Amino acid sequence: MSLVVIGSVAFDAIETPFGKTDKIVGGAATFASLAASYFYNKVKIVAVVGDDFPQEEIQYLQSRKIDTEGLQIKQGEKSFFWSGRYHSDMNSRDTLITELNVLAGFDPIIPDSYQDCEYLLLGNLTPKVQQTVIDRLTNRPKLIVLDTMNFWMDIALDDLLFNLKSIDVLTINDAEARQLSGEFSLVKAASKILQMGPKYLIIKKGEHGALLFGEGKIFSAPALPLADVFDPTGAGDTFAGGFIGYLAKVGTINFANMKNAVIFGSALASFCVEKFGTEKLRNLTQEEIAARVEEFVQLSSFQI
Amino acid sequence: MSLVVIGSVAFDAIETPFGKTDKIVGGAATFASLAASYFYNKVKIVAVVGDDFPQEEIQYLQSRKIDTEGLQIKQGEKSFFWSGRYHSDMNSRDTLITELNVLAGFDPIIPDSYQDCEYLLLGNLTPKVQQTVIDRLTNRPKLIVLDTMNFWMDIALDDLLFNLKSIDVLTINDAEARQLSGEFSLVKAASKILQMGPKYLIIKKGEHGALLFGEGKIFSAPALPLADVFDPTGAGDTFAGGFIGYLAKVGTINFANMKNAVIFGSALASFCVEKFGTEKLRNLTQEEIAARVEEFVQLSSFQI
Repeated sequence: MSLVVIGSVAFDAIETPFGKTDKIVGGAATFASLAASYFYNKVKIVAVVGDDFPQEEIQYLQSRKIDTEGLQIKQGEKSFFWSGRYHSDMNSRDTLITELNVLAGFDPIIPDSYQDCEYLLLGNLTPKVQQTVIDRLTNRPKLIVLDTMNFWMDIALDDLLFNLKSIDVLTINDAEARQLSGEFSLVKAASKILQMGPKYLIIKKGEHGALLFGEGKIFSAPALPLADVFDPTGAGDTFAGGFIGYLAKVGTINFANMKNAVIFGSALASFCVEKFGTEKLRNLTQEEIAARVEEFVQLSSFQI
Repeated sequence: MSLVVIGSVAFDAIETPFGKTDKIVGGAATFASLAASYFYNKVKIVAVVGDDFPQEEIQYLQSRKIDTEGLQIKQGEKSFFWSGRYHSDMNSRDTLITELNVLAGFDPIIPDSYQDCEYLLLGNLTPKVQQTVIDRLTNRPKLIVLDTMNFWMDIALDDLLFNLKSIDVLTINDAEARQLSGEFSLVKAASKILQMGPKYLIIKKGEHGALLFGEGKIFSAPALPLADVFDPTGAGDTFAGGFIGYLAKVGTINFANMKNAVIFGSALASFCVEKFGTEKLRNLTQEEIAARVEEFVQLSSFQI
């Protein structure tokens, strides 16, 4: 049994009020698979890079027991590259450069060894590619989580709506939930979105935490108040990876475990934003993660 | 021993996407004293109205055991009147009319019978008037909570900063915390604001809940996700009144009780926004309040 993550493996160049980077390793599948690897040791990625992608980065993923058989390396082509500049509030950003490169014609190949997929994370990517992965899996995974963004609602809404019919969990932010549903109230938005197919909806609210809807219940997870948010890039992908990684670890899908998965995903995301790119996600210990989760417990517990 | 609430008792005329009202009863002291009255039966108000204020509204406050001896009635003058229109997101609003009327020359009179004040809520009002109330109390109350808004930071910052040195708890919203501190991070903002005087800071985040800072700890309270927010007017005052009313009831000031007070204040505020003005706050039962608080428990609890 395994956890398959599909998404970009790419280069980012980031400017924030705290500094700027040259091209560093990023991409939804990179962040998500790293996060998941702290909970589950059968994480497998489906992605594509060019021949400019450093071999040692692939070896690093492998060193974390992440299976890269589904990572295509296109000779003579370049990896996806995104460059952006965050505003001083760190909530909004300008895209400076988007070079699709190998992503433009990405045809996801599912190795035979991935057909044991039990947990599938469809990271933020063209809805059609996400659907192709579902189609190419012989057996329907036990849990399918889909992450997406407003960009796909703008240009590929029908494809996205089609995908929603075949997934279990959708993760989007509050603005995207409002856009997708046409409702301002997140309660009404969730109700409409759950009618579109997913059994569960997670609305990510950045510094305000996250809401989990499903089984007629709502769970509100806090965000850890941080003195410094260094670089928000990848926080959503990290959340999704930590979320599904935790569920793969515990193995039972119910609302109580989903709530804990939201907390563990939030904990991983809170580490992610403390450094540029994947830096902070590379050397966490289980003790650090447990201590961070305990901070979430302390932050939100009360006894009436 | 008593809980003294100072603030406006006034008329509001409100337009929201759901409808509009004629002049209805509002004002910070009205909302706050009503909320507090559900927890504590020695609530006393200090305020001023004109002779246009309906006698039956004063009798209604009295029927809820709210002492109105400190409510001045100015013959030949008119009550404070505010009119506003909320935008479709219900988070922003335009002020259409502000008629200060009796509030312009408000000199708060503290009846002798109020000198047993143990809990003082300085509702949103001119900082100088708030300070006058502190000065006119013979004994320093056990707990002073101050609520204010960006308007006073704009035009009376020095007076407000002076007040902060003599209070225990400050309640403001997130934009105001950023304005007051000059820090975007709420953790840094709280750290700076706590150095200005208050022992505790509550940052109200509307639909995103509230953060309580103090004793080197942070508590994150969720907001109840509501399908319909009918009228946000008075929600902050209601929160403050429920908060201090609960603390007056339990009688011991510590972080655990402050956390619960934030939850009870949030619960009362969640009722407030369900109808126009004070309507929903007028006929709550203890059972309804307990059920609402249980919703907060269910919403935010998890077991790791």
